[in-house]
Amino acid sequence: MTPQLHPGLEPLRQLLGTWSGTGRGEYPTIEPFEYVESVTFSHVGKPFLAYAQKTRSPDGLPMHAETGYWRLPSSDRVEVVIAHPFGIVEILEGTLDDSGARLRSTCVRGTSTAKSVTTTERNFILDGNVLRYDMRMAAVGQPLTHHLSATLTRDP
Amino acid sequence: MTPQLHPGLEPLRQLLGTWSGTGRGEYPTIEPFEYVESVTFSHVGKPFLAYAQKTRSPDGLPMHAETGYWRLPSSDRVEVVIAHPFGIVEILEGTLDDSGARLRSTCVRGTSTAKSVTTTERNFILDGNVLRYDMRMAAVGQPLTHHLSATLTRDP
Repeated sequence: MTPQLHPGLEPLRQLLGTWSGTGRGEYPTIEPFEYVESVTFSHVGKPFLAYAQKTRSPDGLPMHAETGYWRLPSSDRVEVVIAHPFGIVEILEGTLDDSGARLRSTCVRGTSTAKSVTTTERNFILDGNVLRYDMRMAAVGQPLTHHLSATLTRDP
Repeated sequence: MTPQLHPGLEPLRQLLGTWSGTGRGEYPTIEPFEYVESVTFSHVGKPFLAYAQKTRSPDGLPMHAETGYWRLPSSDRVEVVIAHPFGIVEILEGTLDDSGARLRSTCVRGTSTAKSVTTTERNFILDGNVLRYDMRMAAVGQPLTHHLSATLTRDP
């Protein structure tokens, strides 16, 4: 039985489901690359959305993944906690309105052997059944620089 | 097609799969409670295990969840990154041997509205198809104190 969405999450209802599409990454220290992405937002009736993302190369090999939760302390404020398999944890906070969410890291920390990531920013723009995001990061000594952008559509 | 386990993860192979069982929680600030737990360790052929945990109350209502990744920088060292839906991210590091893993937080941070958690310790003891863990934490002004223990068995 699917539980009812927690009333406090109503402003995030449009994110629920699985989104698929393609993206492109770049960074001063690497070659540009393309990827195929799937993102799922789900809930269990409690006041958070579970967030799970996976990307693959165009020929189907697993690339990145990340997993975490979205919280909504008020109708226009978002808090996101994410764990990354390359040994990074990230807290993002920001604003939410009808067009999407604008998030900036308040904390990025790594394990002893992780690469250094210091700041990230992500914008999620929701337009009906299309979800676009872009992500900037400061990492490995580089200033805040565009890293990823993708366009996803809601799975039927 | 199931990919081969990354060779660097061989010492964690015994964790792969889904584990189910019951646990008990206590803390100076709350009433003791019991829970039903399911934990899954999975992989995609890359050098990390995905870790997903959910607990329910004995009558089936969702309680806690957490999600993250386990990394193995060497055969006897473990790094774990976890996101919690109550707005906490956690990095644990520690040792691994044939009997299990002993982990201590190197970083616990929260969103603006999260409760304060400062330190956590977890031991995972693996004995064939039985996985036991206990967890201690320092939170909401309390010193490092026993919080959770559970006994899980590997799902067939």
